[in-house]
Amino acid sequence: MNKQELIETINRKKSFLCVGLDSDISKIPSHLLSFQDPIFEFNKAIIDATLPYAVAYKPNLAFYESLGWKGLKSLEKTVAYIRLKKEKVFLIADAKRGDIGNTSKQYALSFFGNIDERLNYDAVTVAPYMGEDSVSPFLSFKNKWVVLLALTSNKGADDFQLLTSNGKRLFEHVLESSKKWGNDQQMMYVVGATKAEMLGNIRKIVPDNFLLIPGVGAQGGSLDAVVKYGMNNDCGLLVNASRSIIYASNNTDFAKRAGQEAAAIQKEMARYL
Amino acid sequence: MNKQELIETINRKKSFLCVGLDSDISKIPSHLLSFQDPIFEFNKAIIDATLPYAVAYKPNLAFYESLGWKGLKSLEKTVAYIRLKKEKVFLIADAKRGDIGNTSKQYALSFFGNIDERLNYDAVTVAPYMGEDSVSPFLSFKNKWVVLLALTSNKGADDFQLLTSNGKRLFEHVLESSKKWGNDQQMMYVVGATKAEMLGNIRKIVPDNFLLIPGVGAQGGSLDAVVKYGMNNDCGLLVNASRSIIYASNNTDFAKRAGQEAAAIQKEMARYL
Repeated sequence: MNKQELIETINRKKSFLCVGLDSDISKIPSHLLSFQDPIFEFNKAIIDATLPYAVAYKPNLAFYESLGWKGLKSLEKTVAYIRLKKEKVFLIADAKRGDIGNTSKQYALSFFGNIDERLNYDAVTVAPYMGEDSVSPFLSFKNKWVVLLALTSNKGADDFQLLTSNGKRLFEHVLESSKKWGNDQQMMYVVGATKAEMLGNIRKIVPDNFLLIPGVGAQGGSLDAVVKYGMNNDCGLLVNASRSIIYASNNTDFAKRAGQEAAAIQKEMARYL
Repeated sequence: MNKQELIETINRKKSFLCVGLDSDISKIPSHLLSFQDPIFEFNKAIIDATLPYAVAYKPNLAFYESLGWKGLKSLEKTVAYIRLKKEKVFLIADAKRGDIGNTSKQYALSFFGNIDERLNYDAVTVAPYMGEDSVSPFLSFKNKWVVLLALTSNKGADDFQLLTSNGKRLFEHVLESSKKWGNDQQMMYVVGATKAEMLGNIRKIVPDNFLLIPGVGAQGGSLDAVVKYGMNNDCGLLVNASRSIIYASNNTDFAKRAGQEAAAIQKEMARYL
């Protein structure tokens, strides 16, 4: 999906909600465990219930990999299921990858290079520590995106991301350097909602890029602050909620409750658009 | 495998060689493609040929993930195959993971938490950008190791890792902060062989930790310089070679040639021990 299509989707749905599919076998409703592929059943129901309110989905690879190759199979089925929907959605592999060029190229193939186009994502999250040649292999695919970690939502973000060098903090160096690696049609940035007060400064460096904002919901960030400091003329935001939606209930009404949670967030988002 | 066992293995085999299993379906000998699981056949032959000379193996996850769930299955079979060997080897998942605590915990389960102990690794490579709580979930498993990226072997290492803050470069901050997160029985560091001249300074910060050194071989680093600046009383080094060993030949003699390459490196290593 290219930038224009993403903006159109946001305007049509009056939503910039990304639903995080952090589907944890130990947290999904127990009645699903009798299915042959419980994680896929869970994801299908969550997707069906939330699709009217979401413009993006973000499977978190860790939760699938922890189930071994069977988890990856559940994930592939989930991706194909999303792609079968008539509605176009923006699909982010939350994988935090990044390695030497020769290896990043293989990761890029994992997410963008499948000969079955239905199994490809639109974007992948990438960690910046290894620099340009660890990121650029992901940027060689047309209409595919890198979502680069800039300022993350967790406590450990303070350990290195806020170190100051030559008057700029590390995450500001990451923003400034990386915007030369790819343009705003192919680069987004992760900025945690818990750091919303920093969004004003971030917008000065990357005024036109989309930002992926985790940390609303279970992690405690505020949508109001995110919009106030982070929104641009294109909207420019994808706000992710995972646990607060997908685990709204752990009973047989889980999908309905997830839909209600997503609808409530979408309603709030519509006010800002 | 704990530190003492690793040191004993190094002394017994007179080797600190790690063989990188960057097994690429587009590079393995074509006669293997007729097998039901070509990557597994390739790995088995490489392992059998190199095991007398190697103390560690390092599958690079990207090359398996790029084949989808089937690639992960080939990898699981490879790990089980290594664990069936009578000789204990140190097994590193080269995955460069790292995410918020809740997610890193899932990644840690992927590599260390399998109920079938044969499918667990000894170590996983982790990226430091997200700080302590992205790393600590990997440190809660007994006799399991984090191999944290410090100074990598690629060109992009210069983009951020060498930025200076408060008189120290970013990779030095990573070393100094992270050595408080876990001790030298559970933390190793990645330092590229292409940066061997920096090893002297790195040893001042982490005198007792093992270092995983990629970049010898295809990337052009020198074993002599690595040993000169990086070796400590325990040896303290695992030097990785991937492509120069596993692709020494792309013909039916590939395993024999891989064994010869590994033997040549082991012979050189024995001189330093």
